[in-house]
Amino acid sequence: MKQVFHEITLKTKGQGFYDFTKKTLDWLNKQEIKNGILNINILHTSASLVIQENADPDVLHDLKNFFHKLVPMDNKLYKHTTEGKDDMPAHIKSVLTNNQLTLSIKNKKLMLGTWQGLYLFEHRLEQHTRTLSHHLFGE
Amino acid sequence: MKQVFHEITLKTKGQGFYDFTKKTLDWLNKQEIKNGILNINILHTSASLVIQENADPDVLHDLKNFFHKLVPMDNKLYKHTTEGKDDMPAHIKSVLTNNQLTLSIKNKKLMLGTWQGLYLFEHRLEQHTRTLSHHLFGE
Amino acid sequence: MKQVFHEITLKTKGQGFYDFTKKTLDWLNKQEIKNGILNINILHTSASLVIQENADPDVLHDLKNFFHKLVPMDNKLYKHTTEGKDDMPAHIKSVLTNNQLTLSIKNKKLMLGTWQGLYLFEHRLEQHTRTLSHHLFGE
Repeated sequence: MKQVFHEITLKTKGQGFYDFTKKTLDWLNKQEIKNGILNINILHTSASLVIQENADPDVLHDLKNFFHKLVPMDNKLYKHTTEGKDDMPAHIKSVLTNNQLTLSIKNKKLMLGTWQGLYLFEHRLEQHTRTLSHHLFGE
Repeated sequence: MKQVFHEITLKTKGQGFYDFTKKTLDWLNKQEIKNGILNINILHTSASLVIQENADPDVLHDLKNFFHKLVPMDNKLYKHTTEGKDDMPAHIKSVLTNNQLTLSIKNKKLMLGTWQGLYLFEHRLEQHTRTLSHHLFGE
Repeated sequence: MKQVFHEITLKTKGQGFYDFTKKTLDWLNKQEIKNGILNINILHTSASLVIQENADPDVLHDLKNFFHKLVPMDNKLYKHTTEGKDDMPAHIKSVLTNNQLTLSIKNKKLMLGTWQGLYLFEHRLEQHTRTLSHHLFGE
């Protein structure tokens, strides 16, 4: 069994979806593992990981808008307000989505559906640098 | 280490929960791996995977109803409307739940709680054929 | 490849977050596996697993409060009411969060961000004993 670790860093500029599928595939294609598991974790609690449709950008717009309305940026609703009006909603959105993705590799191909892309879902308003740990193991 | 890949196909007939626990176990019981990991991914972005109570069917009814009210099928709320009033809500429900399940096998037994079943949660109104990739690895 | 199984049992006293990071790390530090995967599953459908900020306790307060308002304990909203007003909301909150966490271990260190802790999110009002299966495999 082989194991390889890697980090992908993304600079985000406000709330929304950041497609990192290509970055992950570019790295994956250089690895020697034919079949195995890729475990991706985001090492932050105010941004998250989502697999979603990569075809119509309106889907991502509507997703962002839905979460914006579901979890209002209104300091009166929260006790944790010291880090800005967007921080507590960011933690809540993080819990409602995912910290991690566990994907399968078969015959050197990442098993994703035709319309599936890998996205970082940024919940903060300001610029952030986000680290996504990649852990590949298999044979 | 051994690795085995498998696909389970489910035909869905409208929104709701489809129990695939037996299909997964029937396949798993034929495999030679004693201890390991089973990674299940749904290769679609408008249906999802959920572990929930398999005892009282009212639980599944109430779950479906809760998500129906939380994410209304109302085209006025969304920009992405070309695929029908149920498509954008389907993507949102998919993000609120899971694309994947990573389960452990110990002594040839899938580690689930007494009341836990594996469900496909279909979010579209029409009939669909859904593919669930199964990837088992261990020894 | 080595595989080790372990169970962590937590006694909960009502709704809220229970940090089990230390229990997991204490066990992990005794294992001989240097690099690998830790798969944690909660074997219940009315409590869940969450990775969240371990710094300001107000974050956990606001999270609990958000889910309490999003999923009301009001029997009129549900058909499944025989197990108490908190049971159906517990199942819904479980689906909105996670049954499981899949984490990476690199050089004997669990890969978590600086501010990330592992929490059981209890959704029931009464005392419960919750079992978290831990499955470590690697080399």
